[in-house]
Amino acid sequence: MSSRKVVELFFDVVSPYSWLGFEVMCRYRNVWNINLQLRPVFLGGIMQASGNKPPGLVPNKFMYMTKDLKRLGEYFDVPLHPPSDPFEAMFNKGSLSAMRFVAAVQEKNKGSDQKVELVSRELWRRIWSEDKDITEPASLIEAATKAGLSVGEIKELLEMYTSKEIKDKLKSSTQEAVGHDSFGLPMLVCHVDGKQEMFFGSDRFELLAHCIGEKWLGPKPEKSAAKL
Amino acid sequence: MSSRKVVELFFDVVSPYSWLGFEVMCRYRNVWNINLQLRPVFLGGIMQASGNKPPGLVPNKFMYMTKDLKRLGEYFDVPLHPPSDPFEAMFNKGSLSAMRFVAAVQEKNKGSDQKVELVSRELWRRIWSEDKDITEPASLIEAATKAGLSVGEIKELLEMYTSKEIKDKLKSSTQEAVGHDSFGLPMLVCHVDGKQEMFFGSDRFELLAHCIGEKWLGPKPEKSAAKL
Repeated sequence: MSSRKVVELFFDVVSPYSWLGFEVMCRYRNVWNINLQLRPVFLGGIMQASGNKPPGLVPNKFMYMTKDLKRLGEYFDVPLHPPSDPFEAMFNKGSLSAMRFVAAVQEKNKGSDQKVELVSRELWRRIWSEDKDITEPASLIEAATKAGLSVGEIKELLEMYTSKEIKDKLKSSTQEAVGHDSFGLPMLVCHVDGKQEMFFGSDRFELLAHCIGEKWLGPKPEKSAAKL
Repeated sequence: MSSRKVVELFFDVVSPYSWLGFEVMCRYRNVWNINLQLRPVFLGGIMQASGNKPPGLVPNKFMYMTKDLKRLGEYFDVPLHPPSDPFEAMFNKGSLSAMRFVAAVQEKNKGSDQKVELVSRELWRRIWSEDKDITEPASLIEAATKAGLSVGEIKELLEMYTSKEIKDKLKSSTQEAVGHDSFGLPMLVCHVDGKQEMFFGSDRFELLAHCIGEKWLGPKPEKSAAKL
């Protein structure tokens, strides 16, 4: 355990590039000798603190991102399908309640990120694959149920996720991301030889691998490893 | 010749990510079965037409880019060293005259991009490695001399690069880039089965390789191939 390099993945389910980064890192968790730590945060807070603007506000960038996400989703084998109204889903509805819910899942399951992983994936699937809401309690219940959580657990989470404790937890994780000079998500922080190396986005995996002394085998390492 | 896939690389020597893209594509030109076409354009015109803002204006992004370029420069083996005052070099001084000069080199050497490649590399080396000017005629002469151009050729280029013909040529190439929905550089346009696929930046080589039916072997393919 102590010899494994720690890699923190800061993410928000409103961010499609975070989904790509999340799936790739979950696949590599057992391929590379790393201790992957999932860090749910609120992208809106990071954008505000850093003064960054969403890339989709530049029309050519928005068009490119649509193509880029389609190509990357296919190549990475992640079922990315943008919501019919991305601006409504991402900016008007947003992800504050969803990420508070994920933070509550993490708080309730200290010591294991397994449920955080499963619930986050179901939330991404809702917004970035099935064009479904992620803001209403009913939506959170559905996602948690699909993730395999029990009725009792979900009831408890619904009481927790609007509490001051969980709001503060998400806020403090988000501030921690900002402390790493974040200006967007996903953000990966590698702890190597007492130093921290930050990587932004879902297009620095090869460089990240190089930095932690591992090898990039493409977005589907187990399939690739099987081929060797 | 006709069976080779055409890949156009739109670049500006003011852009460090363009330099990475340029060196990688020049290395892959003989590894992949492609016809690489160098397309000198003016980044300032693309930013204005697309309404995009330079990423370095967000402080956290600027700090990240500095680290990112250092890491990428080392990993890609490109001697990237930011100028002491990047804002002065990139925005106040800019690259309009340098890119007109490169456009003149291309106009004078139709049919071969070899001199375009050599002169562009010397210009990048000046601004992005040695913190030297690229706006004055004396700077262009020095770069062209290092690139191996003769005194006679350089004299002719100095007469050409401020002509209406060359100004219009750079303008029309820049408009062509905007027509591909560009919002920054480098931009790669692959012509595959009668269709065009556009890739932005220096972090989609693996996806680009997949798209043209080739394999990504890392930023130094010949070394990597030698290892196999």
